[in-house]
Amino acid sequence: MKKLEDLFFHLLKDVYHAEKQAVRAMPKMAKSVESEELRQAFETHREETMRQVERLEKVFELMGKKARGEPCEAIQGLIEEAKEVMDEAEDADVMDAGILAAAQAIEHYEIARYGTLRAWAEELGMKDAVKLLQETLDEEKKTDKLLTDIAVARINREAA
Amino acid sequence: MKKLEDLFFHLLKDVYHAEKQAVRAMPKMAKSVESEELRQAFETHREETMRQVERLEKVFELMGKKARGEPCEAIQGLIEEAKEVMDEAEDADVMDAGILAAAQAIEHYEIARYGTLRAWAEELGMKDAVKLLQETLDEEKKTDKLLTDIAVARINREAA
Repeated sequence: MKKLEDLFFHLLKDVYHAEKQAVRAMPKMAKSVESEELRQAFETHREETMRQVERLEKVFELMGKKARGEPCEAIQGLIEEAKEVMDEAEDADVMDAGILAAAQAIEHYEIARYGTLRAWAEELGMKDAVKLLQETLDEEKKTDKLLTDIAVARINREAA
Repeated sequence: MKKLEDLFFHLLKDVYHAEKQAVRAMPKMAKSVESEELRQAFETHREETMRQVERLEKVFELMGKKARGEPCEAIQGLIEEAKEVMDEAEDADVMDAGILAAAQAIEHYEIARYGTLRAWAEELGMKDAVKLLQETLDEEKKTDKLLTDIAVARINREAA
């Protein structure tokens, strides 16, 4: 990797792989939770993520490249942590809290990566890519906030 | 895992392992970058992280437990991504931009995890733990912001 464009392309492939893995992992996460609100949030976010994958495909297109993923160790580790909770939680509330937390860790990974991609696209003068990446970044932040709200509401409910 | 306390203890061990791995990874990251400002940021954050490890040890103590880590797949993947950049970057500015981005992904993972630990500690009524975890959470957010400032101000521009 000799230029910022190489680095951008590398990370784009990494995030493309990560989002596809996230889409695959979400149905099991949605099915494992008891809270209807949380299940709904996962299902909505899965649909949103499929549109985010399409946006990444448009960015590949803008670069004149074929969309393809590259194994991303970070997302594999993050999904592994979600699986661990699904395997080991023996109580519905513990399951919900653990899966919600794992989903937030995934969101934060994506927020970091889209933030970087957007900044690099800006430096590279790729205006259309900036717009697409910003759109997804805003969605990821909104999802993270929604998950925090669900978590906090649960805490308040249980404290009451 | 049957109770929220089990989940908290599990995540505490996971984050303890993650922070120790981060302390080990940081010297190589600091050595690999050319920007003096970035190198300084990594060195300062390494010292800060060592204090964060001590805070986690205090939380174990508050629970009457011995401090010990548990392998955390997510941090391993995140550090792997930083190593990939260190192996593959063939230009100093690209190296700096890539390592900075990898460090931010690590910060975001930690922000997510400390946010969760703090929320759970609150739910569990562990007031002293809340205070310790909040202190670290604030530091992680500050570090992420500093890295963003460095990236926006210099690194990305130089690599373009």
